[in-house]
Amino acid sequence: MEAAAESIQASSIGAGTDMQTIPGATVDLGRLTRCGFGEVIYGEGKSTDLMTQIVQTQVAVGQGCLITRIDATAAAQLRRVFDNTRYNPSARTLRIGCGDENLDPIGIEGHSTHVAVVTAGSTDAHVAEEAAETLSWMGVACERIDDIGVAGPQRLLAAVPRLRAAAAIVVVAGMEGALPAALAGHVATPVIAVPASTGYGANFAGLTPLMGMLTSCAANVAVVNIDAGFKGGYFAGLIASGIANAKTEAASSEEA
Amino acid sequence: MEAAAESIQASSIGAGTDMQTIPGATVDLGRLTRCGFGEVIYGEGKSTDLMTQIVQTQVAVGQGCLITRIDATAAAQLRRVFDNTRYNPSARTLRIGCGDENLDPIGIEGHSTHVAVVTAGSTDAHVAEEAAETLSWMGVACERIDDIGVAGPQRLLAAVPRLRAAAAIVVVAGMEGALPAALAGHVATPVIAVPASTGYGANFAGLTPLMGMLTSCAANVAVVNIDAGFKGGYFAGLIASGIANAKTEAASSEEA
Amino acid sequence: MEAAAESIQASSIGAGTDMQTIPGATVDLGRLTRCGFGEVIYGEGKSTDLMTQIVQTQVAVGQGCLITRIDATAAAQLRRVFDNTRYNPSARTLRIGCGDENLDPIGIEGHSTHVAVVTAGSTDAHVAEEAAETLSWMGVACERIDDIGVAGPQRLLAAVPRLRAAAAIVVVAGMEGALPAALAGHVATPVIAVPASTGYGANFAGLTPLMGMLTSCAANVAVVNIDAGFKGGYFAGLIASGIANAKTEAASSEEA
Amino acid sequence: MEAAAESIQASSIGAGTDMQTIPGATVDLGRLTRCGFGEVIYGEGKSTDLMTQIVQTQVAVGQGCLITRIDATAAAQLRRVFDNTRYNPSARTLRIGCGDENLDPIGIEGHSTHVAVVTAGSTDAHVAEEAAETLSWMGVACERIDDIGVAGPQRLLAAVPRLRAAAAIVVVAGMEGALPAALAGHVATPVIAVPASTGYGANFAGLTPLMGMLTSCAANVAVVNIDAGFKGGYFAGLIASGIANAKTEAASSEEA
Amino acid sequence: MEAAAESIQASSIGAGTDMQTIPGATVDLGRLTRCGFGEVIYGEGKSTDLMTQIVQTQVAVGQGCLITRIDATAAAQLRRVFDNTRYNPSARTLRIGCGDENLDPIGIEGHSTHVAVVTAGSTDAHVAEEAAETLSWMGVACERIDDIGVAGPQRLLAAVPRLRAAAAIVVVAGMEGALPAALAGHVATPVIAVPASTGYGANFAGLTPLMGMLTSCAANVAVVNIDAGFKGGYFAGLIASGIANAKTEAASSEEA
Amino acid sequence: MEAAAESIQASSIGAGTDMQTIPGATVDLGRLTRCGFGEVIYGEGKSTDLMTQIVQTQVAVGQGCLITRIDATAAAQLRRVFDNTRYNPSARTLRIGCGDENLDPIGIEGHSTHVAVVTAGSTDAHVAEEAAETLSWMGVACERIDDIGVAGPQRLLAAVPRLRAAAAIVVVAGMEGALPAALAGHVATPVIAVPASTGYGANFAGLTPLMGMLTSCAANVAVVNIDAGFKGGYFAGLIASGIANAKTEAASSEEA
Amino acid sequence: MEAAAESIQASSIGAGTDMQTIPGATVDLGRLTRCGFGEVIYGEGKSTDLMTQIVQTQVAVGQGCLITRIDATAAAQLRRVFDNTRYNPSARTLRIGCGDENLDPIGIEGHSTHVAVVTAGSTDAHVAEEAAETLSWMGVACERIDDIGVAGPQRLLAAVPRLRAAAAIVVVAGMEGALPAALAGHVATPVIAVPASTGYGANFAGLTPLMGMLTSCAANVAVVNIDAGFKGGYFAGLIASGIANAKTEAASSEEA
Amino acid sequence: MEAAAESIQASSIGAGTDMQTIPGATVDLGRLTRCGFGEVIYGEGKSTDLMTQIVQTQVAVGQGCLITRIDATAAAQLRRVFDNTRYNPSARTLRIGCGDENLDPIGIEGHSTHVAVVTAGSTDAHVAEEAAETLSWMGVACERIDDIGVAGPQRLLAAVPRLRAAAAIVVVAGMEGALPAALAGHVATPVIAVPASTGYGANFAGLTPLMGMLTSCAANVAVVNIDAGFKGGYFAGLIASGIANAKTEAASSEEA
Repeated sequence: MEAAAESIQASSIGAGTDMQTIPGATVDLGRLTRCGFGEVIYGEGKSTDLMTQIVQTQVAVGQGCLITRIDATAAAQLRRVFDNTRYNPSARTLRIGCGDENLDPIGIEGHSTHVAVVTAGSTDAHVAEEAAETLSWMGVACERIDDIGVAGPQRLLAAVPRLRAAAAIVVVAGMEGALPAALAGHVATPVIAVPASTGYGANFAGLTPLMGMLTSCAANVAVVNIDAGFKGGYFAGLIASGIANAKTEAASSEEA
Repeated sequence: MEAAAESIQASSIGAGTDMQTIPGATVDLGRLTRCGFGEVIYGEGKSTDLMTQIVQTQVAVGQGCLITRIDATAAAQLRRVFDNTRYNPSARTLRIGCGDENLDPIGIEGHSTHVAVVTAGSTDAHVAEEAAETLSWMGVACERIDDIGVAGPQRLLAAVPRLRAAAAIVVVAGMEGALPAALAGHVATPVIAVPASTGYGANFAGLTPLMGMLTSCAANVAVVNIDAGFKGGYFAGLIASGIANAKTEAASSEEA
Repeated sequence: MEAAAESIQASSIGAGTDMQTIPGATVDLGRLTRCGFGEVIYGEGKSTDLMTQIVQTQVAVGQGCLITRIDATAAAQLRRVFDNTRYNPSARTLRIGCGDENLDPIGIEGHSTHVAVVTAGSTDAHVAEEAAETLSWMGVACERIDDIGVAGPQRLLAAVPRLRAAAAIVVVAGMEGALPAALAGHVATPVIAVPASTGYGANFAGLTPLMGMLTSCAANVAVVNIDAGFKGGYFAGLIASGIANAKTEAASSEEA
Repeated sequence: MEAAAESIQASSIGAGTDMQTIPGATVDLGRLTRCGFGEVIYGEGKSTDLMTQIVQTQVAVGQGCLITRIDATAAAQLRRVFDNTRYNPSARTLRIGCGDENLDPIGIEGHSTHVAVVTAGSTDAHVAEEAAETLSWMGVACERIDDIGVAGPQRLLAAVPRLRAAAAIVVVAGMEGALPAALAGHVATPVIAVPASTGYGANFAGLTPLMGMLTSCAANVAVVNIDAGFKGGYFAGLIASGIANAKTEAASSEEA
Repeated sequence: MEAAAESIQASSIGAGTDMQTIPGATVDLGRLTRCGFGEVIYGEGKSTDLMTQIVQTQVAVGQGCLITRIDATAAAQLRRVFDNTRYNPSARTLRIGCGDENLDPIGIEGHSTHVAVVTAGSTDAHVAEEAAETLSWMGVACERIDDIGVAGPQRLLAAVPRLRAAAAIVVVAGMEGALPAALAGHVATPVIAVPASTGYGANFAGLTPLMGMLTSCAANVAVVNIDAGFKGGYFAGLIASGIANAKTEAASSEEA
Repeated sequence: MEAAAESIQASSIGAGTDMQTIPGATVDLGRLTRCGFGEVIYGEGKSTDLMTQIVQTQVAVGQGCLITRIDATAAAQLRRVFDNTRYNPSARTLRIGCGDENLDPIGIEGHSTHVAVVTAGSTDAHVAEEAAETLSWMGVACERIDDIGVAGPQRLLAAVPRLRAAAAIVVVAGMEGALPAALAGHVATPVIAVPASTGYGANFAGLTPLMGMLTSCAANVAVVNIDAGFKGGYFAGLIASGIANAKTEAASSEEA
Repeated sequence: MEAAAESIQASSIGAGTDMQTIPGATVDLGRLTRCGFGEVIYGEGKSTDLMTQIVQTQVAVGQGCLITRIDATAAAQLRRVFDNTRYNPSARTLRIGCGDENLDPIGIEGHSTHVAVVTAGSTDAHVAEEAAETLSWMGVACERIDDIGVAGPQRLLAAVPRLRAAAAIVVVAGMEGALPAALAGHVATPVIAVPASTGYGANFAGLTPLMGMLTSCAANVAVVNIDAGFKGGYFAGLIASGIANAKTEAASSEEA
Repeated sequence: MEAAAESIQASSIGAGTDMQTIPGATVDLGRLTRCGFGEVIYGEGKSTDLMTQIVQTQVAVGQGCLITRIDATAAAQLRRVFDNTRYNPSARTLRIGCGDENLDPIGIEGHSTHVAVVTAGSTDAHVAEEAAETLSWMGVACERIDDIGVAGPQRLLAAVPRLRAAAAIVVVAGMEGALPAALAGHVATPVIAVPASTGYGANFAGLTPLMGMLTSCAANVAVVNIDAGFKGGYFAGLIASGIANAKTEAASSEEA
């Protein structure tokens, strides 16, 4: 049994343990190694100073950043400090690159897998935008399909062929919590449902669509937090990039 | 202002005020006059004796009864006392007629309006049966359509023509809370959604489909209590019989 | 089994499948065909530009629109663009007609069926107004009866004769969640209960009247979402227009 | 400030501080002095032995007891040990007297004040029985009025004169949570509402009527715990006996 | 049975049925006759115009009014219209008298019964003030005892003698939801607990003290809505005035 | 716009629309075509007869079935009717094959992608078993790792290397709701969290771990319904088989 | 930054990393080293076989065990396998020692610090027993004080001197959720509140006392899970043993 | 039994009963004697005048004060009145000393026990600051460790040695509700978990981390109210000062 501690250190703790302490934060510098993608900063409630310091720590080791829930004023301040940035006011996301990487990979050739990001209604758009920005930051192409909730069911039916072409589907729905279940029955791909707090009355700030999505009969639906466009996009991006990597690896090994 | 009390008595309280007090109950004998349909007894938690006494009070004035949530044992006891009865073990309803009225009007000629009673899954059947029995008791024809939840969306699409033919639609759904919203977008008729407590986990004894049905974008959906097959059927029956009566009246007045 | 796909297309999908994609929305142009009434836009959270574009799409095919939850500023902007409009500041609704249709059918001769729209207290008025505007947009006459909650029970009793004359009744109640149940016992007509978020403490933003209305013993009560004046009005309007249509059809067929 | 401790002891702690420790319980022997009525034992979850010991402690100092939520088996065992007992199987209450006091004061002459105990439906009877037994144990007369829920509103109207005669009214309602509000508008007396867990679906084990009763507009309604027949009866009994005592005192002082 | 309608009108509906319809409200003019005290207007969400009109209707028949939840601006406007007013900015209540009645009966000789209005902490004061104003409007004397929550238990102990002297006790508590239970064990009088929404975290806008007060073991506690100072005061005032009336009546009958 | 209906039929509805109606159910025969895997039957609340009939419909067209939540008695009855079955009493799953396919693919060579199914505690095992059976039915290899909750954190650390090797990870946790978040920070793969209803007190039948998993900071966590071992396994299986298919396709195309 | 992995292993992971994998469980053998006390097994839902195997793993390395929530049958089976056991049927705990240690340290001389375990009512006793058994297993003396809820407030006052003598106090309360707050104001010691699910109605399986305890004004109250006698006892035991250890260390260092 | 009242007064009520009544408050002057630390004022909702008066009452008897939840404006006003103050704008705490005591004991020699105050993320800092200020006011040293949530698990592992050195640990976590459970498994010391309302969606204003912390498997975790930095700090300070006092006493007694 004595060997346990050794083996733990050797195999698991070794990967991605870099970190740096600054006043008020312990910055994780190992995410890229450990998780495949760099750090993401939740901007809500953080001062511009703190965000700037965290980003500087990442940039110093050659990594970019995605900041979510950041308002236009704070974003403008950070954009004065850093290069290669992109702010999406609807999504309230700020992407900060490093080097000369292309920030918007949508439409880049060679991407044979992509994610569909769908809304039930047009008021769900800001959550979908957060998902789309996250996917772009991950280098995963995405297609936006808007406003195909079940109240006008022919809209979903018309979109089915495009939905079937995606590697994963993010569905944002608030007032129309039924869409993920209704959509999922038409496709074989994983569907990540994002409940939105848009709506009134018994929507209860997104709790009702959240619960409805969880109890859906469709087996290919998993759920993330209310309004969590970032998480929906990230999770779908992991699936899509996993498939892309598999293709690349298989192709490479065949070549070899 | 002094005339207020008079006018209240004369017009409103006059209709359907008959009642009779027996030990443990004050029996409403005015429902048929006041509400258009006779008394309905909620059987849960009532002794067989009490139910027998209430029914006798109704029968004595020439009215039948519908008892809901009554188990097979109690129903058998009442069937020994009263004539012209029909027990549905799945719905757990007992209908007690009077005179020689035909208890099952389904399929009777001359009914040009009917109600569709739909389930999302086969485990919702007992609630749908309660709705169907209630409609039969009201003299309203009904068509049952089973197991057309959105997980297999072609099933709903195939049923749309039959759904469009109904005067009102009762939709029972528990695990598949999305069906009423998905269905309602295809039809112009009123949809009464009945959330079912079937399901597990985040179904929360029907609370989740209840809330989901309430927040549906489809404007032609109203909701009744969880597992309330009786209420769903009764409300749909009111709509259908309202249309039937309108037809009859209009025809009569034309004839005259 | 192979014929299934064919039959689905032929019968169900054929009706009301028109739609048009604009940036941020997929506009449903088939509602009038499919559902009997045109598109309704939920204004909350939509930009004036988006609302204008959606309305233009509808107007281009000769259909009017109802916009709900639209504030006075946005409404004023749209009224500069479109003709034949009516804004109700209490209801926060904007109706946009087309052609020379009369926008307010209340009191029009020939309407033999109407809907009663009732409030428990005067603070529930804005929800009732939304219901009334929706009914007017549907061409269904409505009668408003205000402030007859059960705290002063003689008020309800005095209103019973007028309530009995309606084809359907919409009851809005927040602080006085008991009114729909108390009212429904006096009438034979369907009652659509609209819980209101007015009130304080254990009202819990309308959840308490919502639940109370659902558990009411009165069989002729169905419920819609909290503050959902539009839905309450629409559902009642469907019932009333169903009866009106039945009368017209029956009369026509007799004449023929 | 030093005098504070002294004054506290002298005035407040002095009244009703007697107690006795037995294995598993610290028996309060001061309730009669402190609160005006003796000890009440909640029987649920207590062993027959423990209940016996607690009662013995009370009887030893010449006080009787009320045990609530005690099943028939345990009650039978205690009745073998103690004299002057009364078990109500519907209420599941056991009253244990001492000396030759009369256990059922209902109908005793000289009681000019009484409490009305009302149910909305016959399934609420067991809760009402607990209230009635509690009142009898307090020496307060009570009148039972059953099954006057708002679904048959003429029943409540007919009962109004009897309700107006009571010093306080206990209203038990589960499925028909609207009754306390509807009833309270007709009377000037305090109404103690007892929500019942009878019902199904959105009743949520009594939570819905509880919340509905709390938000009632009627100002003369206060609420106790779900199914708390004992508390409803006790609180109403305090009001009624307060009035009775006032009459007695006023009469005595006049005589003197 | 035919006599039922007659008897209902004769005895019950006759009392207090006066009402008057104005735009947006149906004013209850029968409350004084029916309930013993005049109309109370919930000011939240009502326009100054509407409040003015309602009050005028009451004043026209010689009755005063209590308006609750009315802000200083609206109160000032009404005070310009009506005489004999008193505004309490902490309670946000406006009392509007008629004739030359004395508006503040606290301390008036001859009041031998009074109500204690207690707070657990000083932040609960505005709710207690609403209760106190309501009592004054009812002509019931009240004593305020502030800030005696259980965190400093000697404060409650010191207050016990004064609490025992009251006819009823109103206890307002938010952060210190335990006070009503802790207090009630010391007294024989009815305690009306008013949960307050003051507090943070798991207070949940008063839901936690509300539930705690309902489950209290003390039998002499009933509960009203969250922040419902008016209801707490009104209910306590009914109890106290019931005792006062009993004394007066008993004394009168002795004299005769 | 007229072409819309055509295009909808041609592309979307065409795939997987086969179905068959039997008494009480509308069997979906198109799932294999439409969704990639055959029908799954939720056994809870279904009669053995109904399950038998549904399976027969599937077997008739050459498809197997997975039945979940089926008890041992019902499973035994079905095993008498069908061949090639496997019952897992802990998972309560019954797999019914067709032809000579190998039912347990775990350990089959050539599977280069697999899913890890992890439990926080040993009481979560039955949910994990349901996930594992589902994966086997899908032909996806899985590795079970048990009882590595955070109370003994070295257990998770020791498992990290094996977790990193999986294509997706299913984590079942009830009492130890923190495991998915704690685990997800160590890996780059998608984590599907399955909240379990095991636990007591504030677990609230799984609601607490459900909510905790949703709010986890780890971006690579999505959540399915409480106790939904089937869904967790199915979703993970989709991800793993997507990668496997990508490898196969890429390899094939290279070869070609 | 590279040194991070090294330092992590050296200092933190080194302590208490021993574990052993058996079928269905990964047994933590490092708790004694890491946490100061050995493993505790939650018995609910575990088979007797699994519990036996886990205990054997612990005993093999010379450590005892505490099993909670174990019923009498399973306990009897384990007692046949292991020596030095003690089963408490009220607490449903089984302690399994090793060597000749004394299992019940209550009353042992030399314990200058102890924990008071208090109940509000006698129905809370089984939770308190679990706390007391846990303390005994930790070698911490405890004093039980029963049934001192606030309904009889003199009982708490009489117990204050004994409560002040304890190093920490565990308070179990269900129906009387107010006790921890009321008690805590009298003492300077830490109070660990354990909400109990005993009670009815608005107790909501312990949720109400849980929330009430959390919002208590008394600053010296922390809360553990509902019915969590084990956790309450363990946490209090940590505080008491911390003080005991401090005394021992200080005394030793003085001696040296 | 008569002696009970005597013994209660003599032993329990005697300690710390001093109080003083000012308008709107009953100031507790006995807390220092009774509870070991002086009065703490919850500033939210209190006027500056009232806070000033309360502090003056304390200062008059030579005691300092801690005010929590006080904004910068009010704090500035009080700092003009009192000497020896310290305002922390992040914590929103104001400490008011008396005499020449040193207000910040962190780092004072001779403190061999201290508390670690930990945050999961940097947005939890203000709650942690409130805890830290409370500890300083109690004279207990504290170490702040920031931003070590489980999303970057190497950060927690690196902090373990420092955590093990503390007498008690306060863990503040909102979005990362899993940290207390994950941390507690590494240490033997008591952990006080403080759920934070930071987060979005299913955080539900802190309810989700609160419930998650309560159900944690780790036995050494107790929980306080949401955002209750003061309570977390105070409770931890009691534990740490208890150990410090034990050391001092033991050392003193050895010396003697």
